Amino acid sequence: MSKTRVGIINVTGYVGVELARLLCQHPEIELVSVTGRSAAGQRLSHVFPHLSSINLTIESKLGDVEIAFSAMPHEESAKEIMPLVDCGVKVIDMSADFRLKEAGEYQRWYGFTHPAPQLLAQAVYGIPELHRAEIASARLVANPGCYPTSAILALYPAARAGIIQPEIIIDSKSGVSGAGRTLKLGSLFSEVNEDVTAYSLDGHRHLPEMVQEIGAAFGNETPKITFIPHLIPMTRGMLSACYAPLIPEKVPGKDLQKGVRDIYLEYYRNEPFIKVVDAPPHAKHTLGSNFCHLYPVVDQRTGRLIVISCIDNLGKGAAGQGVQNMNILLGLPETTGLLAPAVFP
Amino acid sequence: MSKTRVGIINVTGYVGVELARLLCQHPEIELVSVTGRSAAGQRLSHVFPHLSSINLTIESKLGDVEIAFSAMPHEESAKEIMPLVDCGVKVIDMSADFRLKEAGEYQRWYGFTHPAPQLLAQAVYGIPELHRAEIASARLVANPGCYPTSAILALYPAARAGIIQPEIIIDSKSGVSGAGRTLKLGSLFSEVNEDVTAYSLDGHRHLPEMVQEIGAAFGNETPKITFIPHLIPMTRGMLSACYAPLIPEKVPGKDLQKGVRDIYLEYYRNEPFIKVVDAPPHAKHTLGSNFCHLYPVVDQRTGRLIVISCIDNLGKGAAGQGVQNMNILLGLPETTGLLAPAVFP
Amino acid sequence: MSKTRVGIINVTGYVGVELARLLCQHPEIELVSVTGRSAAGQRLSHVFPHLSSINLTIESKLGDVEIAFSAMPHEESAKEIMPLVDCGVKVIDMSADFRLKEAGEYQRWYGFTHPAPQLLAQAVYGIPELHRAEIASARLVANPGCYPTSAILALYPAARAGIIQPEIIIDSKSGVSGAGRTLKLGSLFSEVNEDVTAYSLDGHRHLPEMVQEIGAAFGNETPKITFIPHLIPMTRGMLSACYAPLIPEKVPGKDLQKGVRDIYLEYYRNEPFIKVVDAPPHAKHTLGSNFCHLYPVVDQRTGRLIVISCIDNLGKGAAGQGVQNMNILLGLPETTGLLAPAVFP
Amino acid sequence: MSKTRVGIINVTGYVGVELARLLCQHPEIELVSVTGRSAAGQRLSHVFPHLSSINLTIESKLGDVEIAFSAMPHEESAKEIMPLVDCGVKVIDMSADFRLKEAGEYQRWYGFTHPAPQLLAQAVYGIPELHRAEIASARLVANPGCYPTSAILALYPAARAGIIQPEIIIDSKSGVSGAGRTLKLGSLFSEVNEDVTAYSLDGHRHLPEMVQEIGAAFGNETPKITFIPHLIPMTRGMLSACYAPLIPEKVPGKDLQKGVRDIYLEYYRNEPFIKVVDAPPHAKHTLGSNFCHLYPVVDQRTGRLIVISCIDNLGKGAAGQGVQNMNILLGLPETTGLLAPAVFP
Repeated sequence: MSKTRVGIINVTGYVGVELARLLCQHPEIELVSVTGRSAAGQRLSHVFPHLSSINLTIESKLGDVEIAFSAMPHEESAKEIMPLVDCGVKVIDMSADFRLKEAGEYQRWYGFTHPAPQLLAQAVYGIPELHRAEIASARLVANPGCYPTSAILALYPAARAGIIQPEIIIDSKSGVSGAGRTLKLGSLFSEVNEDVTAYSLDGHRHLPEMVQEIGAAFGNETPKITFIPHLIPMTRGMLSACYAPLIPEKVPGKDLQKGVRDIYLEYYRNEPFIKVVDAPPHAKHTLGSNFCHLYPVVDQRTGRLIVISCIDNLGKGAAGQGVQNMNILLGLPETTGLLAPAVFP
Repeated sequence: MSKTRVGIINVTGYVGVELARLLCQHPEIELVSVTGRSAAGQRLSHVFPHLSSINLTIESKLGDVEIAFSAMPHEESAKEIMPLVDCGVKVIDMSADFRLKEAGEYQRWYGFTHPAPQLLAQAVYGIPELHRAEIASARLVANPGCYPTSAILALYPAARAGIIQPEIIIDSKSGVSGAGRTLKLGSLFSEVNEDVTAYSLDGHRHLPEMVQEIGAAFGNETPKITFIPHLIPMTRGMLSACYAPLIPEKVPGKDLQKGVRDIYLEYYRNEPFIKVVDAPPHAKHTLGSNFCHLYPVVDQRTGRLIVISCIDNLGKGAAGQGVQNMNILLGLPETTGLLAPAVFP
Repeated sequence: MSKTRVGIINVTGYVGVELARLLCQHPEIELVSVTGRSAAGQRLSHVFPHLSSINLTIESKLGDVEIAFSAMPHEESAKEIMPLVDCGVKVIDMSADFRLKEAGEYQRWYGFTHPAPQLLAQAVYGIPELHRAEIASARLVANPGCYPTSAILALYPAARAGIIQPEIIIDSKSGVSGAGRTLKLGSLFSEVNEDVTAYSLDGHRHLPEMVQEIGAAFGNETPKITFIPHLIPMTRGMLSACYAPLIPEKVPGKDLQKGVRDIYLEYYRNEPFIKVVDAPPHAKHTLGSNFCHLYPVVDQRTGRLIVISCIDNLGKGAAGQGVQNMNILLGLPETTGLLAPAVFP
Repeated sequence: MSKTRVGIINVTGYVGVELARLLCQHPEIELVSVTGRSAAGQRLSHVFPHLSSINLTIESKLGDVEIAFSAMPHEESAKEIMPLVDCGVKVIDMSADFRLKEAGEYQRWYGFTHPAPQLLAQAVYGIPELHRAEIASARLVANPGCYPTSAILALYPAARAGIIQPEIIIDSKSGVSGAGRTLKLGSLFSEVNEDVTAYSLDGHRHLPEMVQEIGAAFGNETPKITFIPHLIPMTRGMLSACYAPLIPEKVPGKDLQKGVRDIYLEYYRNEPFIKVVDAPPHAKHTLGSNFCHLYPVVDQRTGRLIVISCIDNLGKGAAGQGVQNMNILLGLPETTGLLAPAVFP
């Protein structure tokens, strides 16, 4: 039986190239087409020498595929995707263009009028641990942002179990690859190295995703989420520290710490990529992988829940989760091609 | 007139060597004696080639000085300091041994019985921006921890102005030099690089300092502070993100953001080392210096105050502040020898 | 058919843990036993959370295996290995203990009397690109050092083709993981970050391996090799710049540059892990992989050959090459379990 | 007496901003004017918050100054400088535009026709340790490149003493700030971090400076220099390893190592910024300073001289040396404002 034909739109950014790395090792699909703008016409292995095993030329237009990943910037991604969806190609959109359910949010947060609001309802927000069933039958998967992935996985079980108040602070630290491969002063080595900074203090674009998904767990009460991202001097990796007041009487058992931990262990019991760890996690333990390490802990002095969440922003935070979604779309075992451990140290 | 004779106990750690760097450039004092244990008998400039201009041998016992800095570990520091204070040497203790007012806290947080509880009342907590007058007449200055310095400077004006509730979250990110020069697995380059981790989730030793000093601003209500430190892959530098619910009706004027900012500008109006900046600060902008950059901002969606605070953990967070305290003790202009800008990039 | 049973002696160093990472993904063998000293009795996945998929406890003594990797320090490794070889276990020694053919060299370079000189002749120096046939029938493979691997692969084709004089300078830059996971001041993040230093200027222990193997290509003339290693602030990766005077009349064709390049392309034509690249290589393009990128170029002004060689010091420079040797020993396709591209960026 | 009025053309690059940092602390001059293109009209302290003590607006045209530093890119710098020199302003050119004596070299290496060849003879190559007297009376000082500074200081004493053959290899490792503050893919954090690469293998523009200055020491024989620069993941700092065959009979005394070392100690005996150190130097020991650490050593096995040289590429390799040249031009003590030790760790 021939393998499923897969393509990547805009392979030349960090998400695109990470998709190529994962897909070229995937045993059940074949990467047959990759596109790029400035690099069109060049060999993929020339632009990215580590991909020497991939025998493809970067094209200006996607070839004939059954599944397409779009790693285009937001707004442009939607335009590329619309005709593909119309043709019956299944699409996994790595951009933000189909993550939010309300079209108006795109005007507010991204500054453009959504070109395909009718598709927003069909698109499925692609965190398998929350929406596995819908993903399986989707035509269009909106692959989540890296920050939302780390925060939603950290907070969803507690919110759903009703053990926290909807007063949430999410303090995230990200590697620089999250800012992409475009040329910006703030991404230069000499500016980032030996530095840490908070940014988007007036509201980061990933906030509405968090409100939408975590909010769903709270039911009809919109949580008050403060989300502050930080840039730290590492290439890959993300750690989110999530804080919320506990409702202790809602926690089962007498031992708050154990009760909380059991909720997480239970919620993620069958999840192959979520590890509820027993010591504060290190981002490095997920580097290059699709794993998420979670560490829920109770601050006994203040009655707050703290959940530390670590992922690779390009792994579970982007390309890894994209391939996980692809596996679900194709009816493959969800872990196919994704079980490589982190590269450590 | 001869210069004041100054010494450093335990010069071979990162705080000690940073004190040496600052003191050898100070125009009004003379560094005359430095001690160390394993390196005793060696030239300081041999152990630390960047200090080639200092003509001193590391001694096992402090020579005759008028002012002594102790950069010993906690518990040991108190023992070194007690006889010096008795002899009338003014001491600036870089350890935690005289920071807390209640002797019992040492048992609880540091696991030892304080050997000189009678000195705790005399010791002054050395943040000049809060306790300048007491420092001027002190015999013993307890130089604050790096995390508390960053957090107290960030929160004190708001707490004192009564504009925040005492429900505080402090999420700090530190360079690795804060862990000192001792050999630990967690300080190895290969473990720290490309990593970020939260630690001391069950309570960091710097928390009681924060509660003591920020608590003083709240009056008789003990604030509920959650403090989570993180280690990030940089050598020097610290950023603290501090979160607290605003009490909007206490903020003067109609514009919350402006009202809050004005409180900070006013409180630090005459402070030479505190810059209330108008964009999110970078730790790098304080590297090697004694400056603290503060950025207070209101999260309009949630009604929370966020204050971002950047220092060099070895500068304003340790040695720089120590020299600032020394200047006050000696009646010198407080900025003497301390105005060098950060080394950038 | 049951899989070959494989073990790792001293899994807790960086080479050991990298072997575990590669072996747990290998489709044809089963990792059944790992040992460690201080960590004996602990779960491997507890000590190294990224290896959560490996269900093994660290033992104090190796279990029943058909192939053993020894990642012990030199001198200790030989002692562990001797009884295994006697029992017919095939051994791949990651230490230096069987790399040099003359027992006297161990006294000179490593300061110990070799405990099993009779095994030195049987041991095969494990660079498959040079000694594939002997490895296939070996009982004991001496896995090469990281520096020698990078330098020998860079210089062997030119030396063998007779196009360079035996006047060689090898200037290597290594990531810090090469110094291992032991606690040393020089491996601390704060000492290494923002630093570069040359070390072992009076003769590094990897020099005799280079002389032995490169010397073999020159025939009976011992090459004069100056080898200077440098430590640079990265965790993994190695770049060697190798310099030697060309003998232009020995280079085929009229175009020196092309003639030299053709020699390398031809020599490594069928090698799956050696890429003769067409632009200066980046260490990063090999990170986490078993690939070696080589770039031979002629300095036309001075008539010198320059060869730039990039590997991952823990990949082709250690564990990756070890697994490649294991594949050869087992008669498996040499690339089995080793084709994962580098993790980039 | 009023202070000398000094200006910086193009303050917004890394060399310009480092000049500003040093000049604002200099006790004998006043920084009165700084220019920049894109940032003209903005406060210097807004663009560079660490320079909060400098009260200047970035201008589009230089104000009235007695001494000007030009930190413009090559070719543009010459055009800015020519009218200033004509007006009698003393100029220190941080670009390459007046470093080479032969106008034709600009066509060959930089690809432009030199607009002021008549000034080349007047310009003095600004390494004070070689050309102090000429600098003192110069109208125009050509501040050397960072690589040439590190290599010339390393090799000049040996070349002048006649103890080495003119067969030289210079292998340099530089921090990324040397590539400037312009936006390039190769300067992005995610590309540089965990990487090392050699570049300009077909000839770097700094080579002719080395040939010119080191060649002068050899007399009428042009040395054959191979120079390969590498980019390593650090912001500031540079280490050059220089290799040349010794002529042992020219080395005084019986002990080659001591004889070589004595030549260096003697040559730099009175130099305040050159330290001939007794252990392999670390780039970090010069970070932020104007010092150069040199370590000459003999490779006894091969009869080669190795000299390791460490500087801060923005310090002694650019701005620091520029200020040193300014001090000479002004007849000030050469160390004025330049004795701050490196920031360590």
